[in-house]
Amino acid sequence: MTITIIGMGLIGGSMALALKDNGMADQIIGVENNPAHAAKAIELGLADKIESLDLAIEEADLIILAIPVNVAEKLLPTLLGKINKQVVMDVGSTKNTICTIIKNLSNKGRFVATHPMWGTEYSGPEAAVKGAFINKATVICNKENCDADALALVEKIYQSIGMHLIYMEASAHDLHTAYISHISHITSFALANTVLEKEKEEDAIFELASGGFESTVRLAKSNPEMWVPIFMQNKENILDVLNEHISQLRKFKSCLEKDNEDYLRELMVKANTIKRIIK
Amino acid sequence: MTITIIGMGLIGGSMALALKDNGMADQIIGVENNPAHAAKAIELGLADKIESLDLAIEEADLIILAIPVNVAEKLLPTLLGKINKQVVMDVGSTKNTICTIIKNLSNKGRFVATHPMWGTEYSGPEAAVKGAFINKATVICNKENCDADALALVEKIYQSIGMHLIYMEASAHDLHTAYISHISHITSFALANTVLEKEKEEDAIFELASGGFESTVRLAKSNPEMWVPIFMQNKENILDVLNEHISQLRKFKSCLEKDNEDYLRELMVKANTIKRIIK
Repeated sequence: MTITIIGMGLIGGSMALALKDNGMADQIIGVENNPAHAAKAIELGLADKIESLDLAIEEADLIILAIPVNVAEKLLPTLLGKINKQVVMDVGSTKNTICTIIKNLSNKGRFVATHPMWGTEYSGPEAAVKGAFINKATVICNKENCDADALALVEKIYQSIGMHLIYMEASAHDLHTAYISHISHITSFALANTVLEKEKEEDAIFELASGGFESTVRLAKSNPEMWVPIFMQNKENILDVLNEHISQLRKFKSCLEKDNEDYLRELMVKANTIKRIIK
Repeated sequence: MTITIIGMGLIGGSMALALKDNGMADQIIGVENNPAHAAKAIELGLADKIESLDLAIEEADLIILAIPVNVAEKLLPTLLGKINKQVVMDVGSTKNTICTIIKNLSNKGRFVATHPMWGTEYSGPEAAVKGAFINKATVICNKENCDADALALVEKIYQSIGMHLIYMEASAHDLHTAYISHISHITSFALANTVLEKEKEEDAIFELASGGFESTVRLAKSNPEMWVPIFMQNKENILDVLNEHISQLRKFKSCLEKDNEDYLRELMVKANTIKRIIK
């Protein structure tokens, strides 16, 4: 099978590695606007060749859209207008907008909306990771809108790279990801800015910061070109959870201001119950 | 050398492992109020024996206080009243309170205030980790108050387990740790409570949560018995940074409310500069 990947970055590149590795792809064609990324994708063996969009569509059996969500939503109508029997899937972190857009497009049954739940704070072809998706979950949204063969192919692709499938309605996906992914990114960006604002002795951060700080702040290294559109597309859900988060932080603040050790302990004991849910 | 460790938990247990491993300790005596922890410390080989405080002090060359900071501050005067030539060091996450208390105590030159910059979200003897401190920093505070031989012994102990030494005034230590450790714990506890409050479908968290969520929320599993006293002792510094953090979160909120993509991008580009400082 020939697989075209539009966007040879963190996710596109990691998918390329996985699909070459397991033999699902006889050939990976990369589409990449950034010439440096295009060259790097070839150098790293992520793509067998880089082609123009039109050629890459024509030659493909499967087309994977792995570009920022705002670019994907603009490209999708054009893309679906150019395909014949190819299957198109996206891998974006928001699903409601793209699933709404697709409703009025011809060939809409060829499109499968997905979100593999894996990523790192790094971006570009050099960020691609071997074996990235093994034992992770992938979400497939609004599958009832897909042609049966298109859905079956995408399911097979994800299973072949070691992922288990979760089916969800697009708006439910966006709600849940606001809670368990998007808010983590907001808090991490804000925490980095807090520390950069307060700590004027950068050497002290560098010398003293231990694992705890690094793990809470690492998402602050994430690429704005990818994350600004995600936050904007999912802003209603994110605002809702962000308001709750600020109110939770205010509870901690009030405990410290009022020397209320009992309530502080209670808040922390409650937070400890997250152990039940994450490993 | 016989080393007495008061508190056979995460830090005490990990120090025991390191000091047995490198031969610095001929014998480790544990002091542990919790009978289950005492038994576990023996079973895991963290301590050669568990003894009463008085016996353990008498037989020791070095005494390591590895108990919550509020308990350490209460025990220290008693402890210094009972020692002769022994050296006492603590490993607590706040240093100002204990360095203030020590000023009026006899034998105060025998005490070295330290804070090894390593930890995990787990607690108790089973949380002890081999090789925990290698290539990490340890802070020694107000060293001018220590007897020369006491300071030299503690420096040797830390270097033997692979740590590099940073010297700092106690109040500067508490300021910096508020920025690069304590605030991370507050945000993580608050984030766990946010998600527990908003996400009523725990299965969704369990299935969808990926590495990003886990890393921002993992400190929420930390032990309140250890962290309530740290937050209370360092509350002025923590409140200062917590106020800044809430104001940084409000900037993100305002961007989303006002569709201000440019400023959102600017905030994230600024946060990205944390790359300079952490690996």
